[in-house]
Amino acid sequence: MADAEPKLANGAGRIVFQTDPSRYRHWQLAVDGEVSTLTLDVDEKGGLFEGYELKLNSYDLGVDIELADALMRLRFEHPAVRAIVLRSGKPRVFCAGANIRMLAGATHAHKVNFCKFTNETRNAIEDASACSGLRTLCVISGTAAGGGYELALAADYIILADDGSSTVSLPELPLLAVLPGTGGLTRVIDKRKVRRDRADVFCTTEEGIKGKRAVEWRLVDEVVPNSKLDAAVAERLRTLAEGSNRPQDAKGIALKPLDRQVSPTGIDYWLVSVELAAPQRLATVTLRGPETPPPDSVAAMVEEGSDFWPLRLARELDDAILDLRFNAIDTAAIVFKSIGDPEAVLAYDAFLDAHADHWLAREIRLLWKRLLKRIDLTSRTLVTLVEPGSCFAGTLAELVLAADRSYMLIGGDGRDNRPAATLALAAANFGHYPMVNGITRLASRFLDDAASLTAARERTGEMLDAEAAETAGLVTFALDDIDWDDEIRVFLEERASFSPDALTGMEANLRFGGPETMESKIFARLTAWQNWIFQRPNAVGAEGALRRYGTGQKPVFDTKRV
Amino acid sequence: MADAEPKLANGAGRIVFQTDPSRYRHWQLAVDGEVSTLTLDVDEKGGLFEGYELKLNSYDLGVDIELADALMRLRFEHPAVRAIVLRSGKPRVFCAGANIRMLAGATHAHKVNFCKFTNETRNAIEDASACSGLRTLCVISGTAAGGGYELALAADYIILADDGSSTVSLPELPLLAVLPGTGGLTRVIDKRKVRRDRADVFCTTEEGIKGKRAVEWRLVDEVVPNSKLDAAVAERLRTLAEGSNRPQDAKGIALKPLDRQVSPTGIDYWLVSVELAAPQRLATVTLRGPETPPPDSVAAMVEEGSDFWPLRLARELDDAILDLRFNAIDTAAIVFKSIGDPEAVLAYDAFLDAHADHWLAREIRLLWKRLLKRIDLTSRTLVTLVEPGSCFAGTLAELVLAADRSYMLIGGDGRDNRPAATLALAAANFGHYPMVNGITRLASRFLDDAASLTAARERTGEMLDAEAAETAGLVTFALDDIDWDDEIRVFLEERASFSPDALTGMEANLRFGGPETMESKIFARLTAWQNWIFQRPNAVGAEGALRRYGTGQKPVFDTKRV
Repeated sequence: MADAEPKLANGAGRIVFQTDPSRYRHWQLAVDGEVSTLTLDVDEKGGLFEGYELKLNSYDLGVDIELADALMRLRFEHPAVRAIVLRSGKPRVFCAGANIRMLAGATHAHKVNFCKFTNETRNAIEDASACSGLRTLCVISGTAAGGGYELALAADYIILADDGSSTVSLPELPLLAVLPGTGGLTRVIDKRKVRRDRADVFCTTEEGIKGKRAVEWRLVDEVVPNSKLDAAVAERLRTLAEGSNRPQDAKGIALKPLDRQVSPTGIDYWLVSVELAAPQRLATVTLRGPETPPPDSVAAMVEEGSDFWPLRLARELDDAILDLRFNAIDTAAIVFKSIGDPEAVLAYDAFLDAHADHWLAREIRLLWKRLLKRIDLTSRTLVTLVEPGSCFAGTLAELVLAADRSYMLIGGDGRDNRPAATLALAAANFGHYPMVNGITRLASRFLDDAASLTAARERTGEMLDAEAAETAGLVTFALDDIDWDDEIRVFLEERASFSPDALTGMEANLRFGGPETMESKIFARLTAWQNWIFQRPNAVGAEGALRRYGTGQKPVFDTKRV
Repeated sequence: MADAEPKLANGAGRIVFQTDPSRYRHWQLAVDGEVSTLTLDVDEKGGLFEGYELKLNSYDLGVDIELADALMRLRFEHPAVRAIVLRSGKPRVFCAGANIRMLAGATHAHKVNFCKFTNETRNAIEDASACSGLRTLCVISGTAAGGGYELALAADYIILADDGSSTVSLPELPLLAVLPGTGGLTRVIDKRKVRRDRADVFCTTEEGIKGKRAVEWRLVDEVVPNSKLDAAVAERLRTLAEGSNRPQDAKGIALKPLDRQVSPTGIDYWLVSVELAAPQRLATVTLRGPETPPPDSVAAMVEEGSDFWPLRLARELDDAILDLRFNAIDTAAIVFKSIGDPEAVLAYDAFLDAHADHWLAREIRLLWKRLLKRIDLTSRTLVTLVEPGSCFAGTLAELVLAADRSYMLIGGDGRDNRPAATLALAAANFGHYPMVNGITRLASRFLDDAASLTAARERTGEMLDAEAAETAGLVTFALDDIDWDDEIRVFLEERASFSPDALTGMEANLRFGGPETMESKIFARLTAWQNWIFQRPNAVGAEGALRRYGTGQKPVFDTKRV
């Protein structure tokens, strides 16, 4: 097994998710009117870890962090962009997919985390199209192999050059004994609706498919000879942009770098603080509510820009969650707390609702939606403590509903004069933030209990005390001051004593009741199988395909079909 | 890892799935009018493998084979039974679930196969209720732990004795660091709709939940004091039976033992033969079509009993598939062939359609439905060869649609005078046999291609030659005699060269496009996570929980959350 930890390049001590276009090494982001060109031109020497070169536009997490950043910039800094064209800056290759030597050397945990992040980024491309009017065209000149083709699959439209050599392929299985796990198998079947037996042929054909057959099999939308490629791209971009409802002349806001102070025991942002208790394997994430009322106009919101409370909080929390996922891998549980005035949180929710048709309000809602999905998909026990002085209301109440368990204190805590704990729902809880299963956290909670769902809706805006919240089924336990500390301590100690793997599996099952969607299938069916394969000697053993790739030696397989 | 092969008990050379009530060691099947009592009273010394005792009504595959057989008997031999009561023959324990020492000693492959079979058996209990009017009541007196409670979850109604000690629990995670993987997590959430945070508490509480809280949390339907238990059971059975549409006075048919000849190179049944080519890791399964026309009345069908062609074929094929799963684990691919007259097959389909409201015709259809699902869920590459003289028509055409790839020969093969290959669809292909995803194999094939689905329906009953079948999208490739042998040989050699694990993962993704159901979630989300955990040292390593259970030593866990 490959569980010796590879070293981060350039002596870095942790993986950092913050970047900006001036610092990109692998992507170029260009904007021209309603079209943005995202060019992948990977710096071979720019690997995030030591020990491999990113040849042939192959990628690692560092490359994908830049892509995720670029997509955020297009949403917030360039609201007039309606169509993105994804292309390669290298001749004869679009993208060779995830770097194989990186994968071969990565720990199991990193492989899993890496795939989760890249999946979230591809889902964000589709979300931008579905919800934000930001369409993506992918132009493949050269080879799009494995993760390269999976990136294309996230686009609305794929053009393949008809030059006798440009191909799409998913060679993971024949070449590496793993799956096209960044959504590939699911999108081929459930998005592009490739016939299943053709998908079988495609996914076992190392050299891939090109030309007319790629269209006939629905793997790409169109093949175009090189002589007509530019014209076709321009035409398709026009069509894609036409369907967009993005604002035509809006000016974006600048996403300022996040202020953060990293210490051995945590991270402090402006509105979020993360406190690590290593011996207890706990991370406590505290969110601060707004200190001022919402601005009095959308113009004022735009003026506040990335300091606008809901946006700043979301960006900080997103960064904190990613940091915990990758840099605090021993953490058993994340405990969410909040400090602030719940009425003030509701006021911001009301402001965003009142201006729901403004592009910035929409993007902020969508960022929260993606962030909350990311939290649902985080393999840590999620616990929310609703205490005196907290502000779990509206959007922030989603953190109560996302938790595996929530605890709420009855009355004051007798230690200070903070107001008794309250919980409040808002319109935001009833549709703004669907989970990956396509339904809200409240609907997932009350799967067969329409009465509770209706009752909850009727109490929208009310400040619920602990007993009311427990009766309404919104928190797991309401506890009084006498039991509070002990109950929670015992629970968290118990949680830390369980097998981390079994908890991951259990939580992944209990969190996502009800329907499944393409997105949830990617994180359930596809990812869980891939994680299994990432443990199997046929892939990751000393004689397995990932290790033997490029050595000239063939892998040796255990032939048992399990 | 526990991959030393445990020995079958009593010197047995292979796992055998055929049994009958006279040979049961663990279950008693009693029938009294419209009610059947299935009593679990496990023989401690009756383990299928050496090395463990089946204490506390715990089970292994051998116990579950008897349960599956009993359910088949109730369907075919006792058509007047409308309600089953599942109970324990032991005091103070209903069922302790899968035997832990058995699991700890089992190979990874056996764990996976065992869970798949037990899941299929529980799904069959639900199918009997949903489709065959055969309801199940589960009465829990004593502890129902882990797989014991999961068995109860398959019932329509669960009564728990209110005696201060009878409890239900899913202690897999705290006790063994694995999941309640026999549908437990899924059924708690998606069938019983237990609130997800309560499910979290329940699944991490080793001692389980009893009394009123078990009802309040929806874990059971009713708690009843011992003094009123018999009356409550009788009453509930009456209610369950009332809703049934099973025939009131029908006499069943005897399911005769299957004739089979086992040799080192295969198994011969009456209508099915399995030929193993060990060096190529291939199993060729040949099905024989009917030699006589269908009987001229339902009475005559009942008279034929288990010799009636569709029933006999289904029982033999089911046994053959199970044998391959467990006893031919090195097999890479199953190749389906058939011999017979496609018109004759269609005549049987027409006969079953004409008598669809007869209980036996219904049970035969439902058996085929379950059998075809079992084939879909078999982790072998499935290949169907449509050759001259074959009879893939109607119900048998499902084997073409279930295949990962199908090949059809154009024209005769020049070697003999068998009629050219034909393929024919029937009404049976358009609704009788939904997959676990809830839609037919044709609908799964043409997910976004209503035109092809409609065109296929319009050709119902036509004998399609290879080119027509290929054009209609019903086979993967139509090949002529010149290419046939080489193409198929190369394909099968290639398949055998791939990683078996990666194939399992790929096929599990490509086969099940479209919607997901509770059943498909069990085999995808839940099973795939469980299989991952079954590879993780925290569960199966030398210091893992499964190995250390009962030793007095605590397991040692890798604390990384993946």
